[in-house]
Amino acid sequence: MTTKRIETLVDGIFAIAMTLLVLSLNVPQIPSPVTDAAVLKSLASMWGQFFVYFMSFVLLATFWRINHSQFYLIKKTDQTLLWINVIWLLFVALVPFSTNFVGDYGYLTVPILFFDLNLFMIGILFNLNWRYAVKHNFIDEDVDQEHIQSNIRLNLILPVTALAAAGLSFITPEYSSLVYFSIFFVRRIF
Amino acid sequence: MTTKRIETLVDGIFAIAMTLLVLSLNVPQIPSPVTDAAVLKSLASMWGQFFVYFMSFVLLATFWRINHSQFYLIKKTDQTLLWINVIWLLFVALVPFSTNFVGDYGYLTVPILFFDLNLFMIGILFNLNWRYAVKHNFIDEDVDQEHIQSNIRLNLILPVTALAAAGLSFITPEYSSLVYFSIFFVRRIF
Amino acid sequence: MTTKRIETLVDGIFAIAMTLLVLSLNVPQIPSPVTDAAVLKSLASMWGQFFVYFMSFVLLATFWRINHSQFYLIKKTDQTLLWINVIWLLFVALVPFSTNFVGDYGYLTVPILFFDLNLFMIGILFNLNWRYAVKHNFIDEDVDQEHIQSNIRLNLILPVTALAAAGLSFITPEYSSLVYFSIFFVRRIF
Amino acid sequence: MTTKRIETLVDGIFAIAMTLLVLSLNVPQIPSPVTDAAVLKSLASMWGQFFVYFMSFVLLATFWRINHSQFYLIKKTDQTLLWINVIWLLFVALVPFSTNFVGDYGYLTVPILFFDLNLFMIGILFNLNWRYAVKHNFIDEDVDQEHIQSNIRLNLILPVTALAAAGLSFITPEYSSLVYFSIFFVRRIF
Repeated sequence: MTTKRIETLVDGIFAIAMTLLVLSLNVPQIPSPVTDAAVLKSLASMWGQFFVYFMSFVLLATFWRINHSQFYLIKKTDQTLLWINVIWLLFVALVPFSTNFVGDYGYLTVPILFFDLNLFMIGILFNLNWRYAVKHNFIDEDVDQEHIQSNIRLNLILPVTALAAAGLSFITPEYSSLVYFSIFFVRRIF
Repeated sequence: MTTKRIETLVDGIFAIAMTLLVLSLNVPQIPSPVTDAAVLKSLASMWGQFFVYFMSFVLLATFWRINHSQFYLIKKTDQTLLWINVIWLLFVALVPFSTNFVGDYGYLTVPILFFDLNLFMIGILFNLNWRYAVKHNFIDEDVDQEHIQSNIRLNLILPVTALAAAGLSFITPEYSSLVYFSIFFVRRIF
Repeated sequence: MTTKRIETLVDGIFAIAMTLLVLSLNVPQIPSPVTDAAVLKSLASMWGQFFVYFMSFVLLATFWRINHSQFYLIKKTDQTLLWINVIWLLFVALVPFSTNFVGDYGYLTVPILFFDLNLFMIGILFNLNWRYAVKHNFIDEDVDQEHIQSNIRLNLILPVTALAAAGLSFITPEYSSLVYFSIFFVRRIF
Repeated sequence: MTTKRIETLVDGIFAIAMTLLVLSLNVPQIPSPVTDAAVLKSLASMWGQFFVYFMSFVLLATFWRINHSQFYLIKKTDQTLLWINVIWLLFVALVPFSTNFVGDYGYLTVPILFFDLNLFMIGILFNLNWRYAVKHNFIDEDVDQEHIQSNIRLNLILPVTALAAAGLSFITPEYSSLVYFSIFFVRRIF
């Protein structure tokens, strides 16, 4: 059993989940009389939803990218690795719901915590995926030990960031998600 | 006509059906004043929907997996086999509706029966697919007779489980779906 | 420019359109008290929607199949053929809406006519696609003249059937769609 | 890292975004008594939505086509080019929302401006994509300088058209979108 099969499912689910995010943006229902000013006002009130759409799209693209660079190095797979990835995809496919949830109630702590937990699970399963593949010698033989260890460190970034965001959500729910943008800077450092 | 074409359609429909499951999770509409406590409460009342999402996602992944291992061995196809698979996909694409239905009225018998019937049809068509391919010598010649017979037995697990769940739904609708998790254990035994 | 590119887009749009059909099935909203009898009754009242879902799924699968057998023989393409296919896909992607429309108001003539017109356009564009490819020598050289002519005849079945259904919809809207099932029998005869 | 990976994601997101456009067409909710005349009337009132569906579908197909002809010539990629494309896809996936928005309030200036801005961003990112690839020598060596320059000119058509449509939307919102159809004629001239 090759890894190609898993990659096809991963590509499909990511493309769909990323496109479904747009369904979290609802065309505002404006009471009559509908004027340009009224439309502009309700559009402005949606800025939080646009922000969450933007952020979730970029985060999903990042996860898709990391998954691809991991599977580029993983040469074999088994039943267990397949199921780690299925559960991982289950949480990826949940992101449009979490995004929608935060888009509606982003000023509260509970929806933000739900979103953070969702990303935390995605991060933990990334970790598990790589560690399992390393442990069972599924990695391409040409990959040196340093690269493998560096990948283990990289895979800690997301769960740690999610925990940090979760902690911040108790203090300032609205701005806690900004922590996720640090991922792009941290990745350069490691 | 090769089997590759069918597999492409199968992969596409599975990726979409699995991702559409998330649409069965609706962001709760909470009356003002919206507080963290209120959101948490309505989230807790959704546990049944999360459970059904989880279960349907895992079941669809299982079906996708079984389909792939069958088509890995099927080397030829014809018009009839194509249509068996189209009808099979019709019931696969119906799963998001059934899931939604159970998510809303999972405490009743009729929705659970509908869900069980949906899975039963998927199981029966799996069976038909394999039997038809065996009967018309579409199987790879290197596959031994024992493997073929073992596959026929394996393909009975799903319809039998669906019938068991349907029977249980008359006694305890809420918990009857747990029977499906036995699939993972039974598969190891055969 | 090869035909492979068009085929990828076709495969994607078909898989999605076929799966989106399920969104035309809405979980019934039942007023309290919700009992098994009430659920069963509202499920029974949905039989028309299930029928339309079933029919549209099978029709789309048929169109996908015919498209593939046409493109199997078409070896070259140009800008115009690409656009014929884009417009064709536009009407294919419209099928979930037409299906939904008929599912809601299938007892009236206008929605049925809309559905028939949608299928008529799909049929006409199939025709155009093949005739254009024949006229510009895009067909594989090994295909004999008889096969080409037979395909032209085959491509008339759908638009003619759609016109027949449209005519019938003025007399008996509910049953006019049954005409489409004749496609499966007629194809064997030609 | 090859460009093949990006192309797969692009194909998936386009197929889904094009098919999701159909969700902007809502089956009309008609108050009793539902007659053919009432259905026809509400269908006629939807002509703006059908027009926007048609236009967005054709525009997305055009963008998909242009992306493919660009990537046919781009032989290498890097982290930055990947992210230009992800942001580009973010605006492509936003088109179903913009379409929906214009479909509902197409007689106003603000929704039309939003739609135009969306297309402007898509055009600008097309530009950036090609310029970045040229600057970093990612283009196939066989492509001559003239073709490269012609592509830079071609990539200006969309953003310029979007700006023109935006300008017109202040005078006549309903008809400003017609400007986009000039794209098909202008492309022949260059």
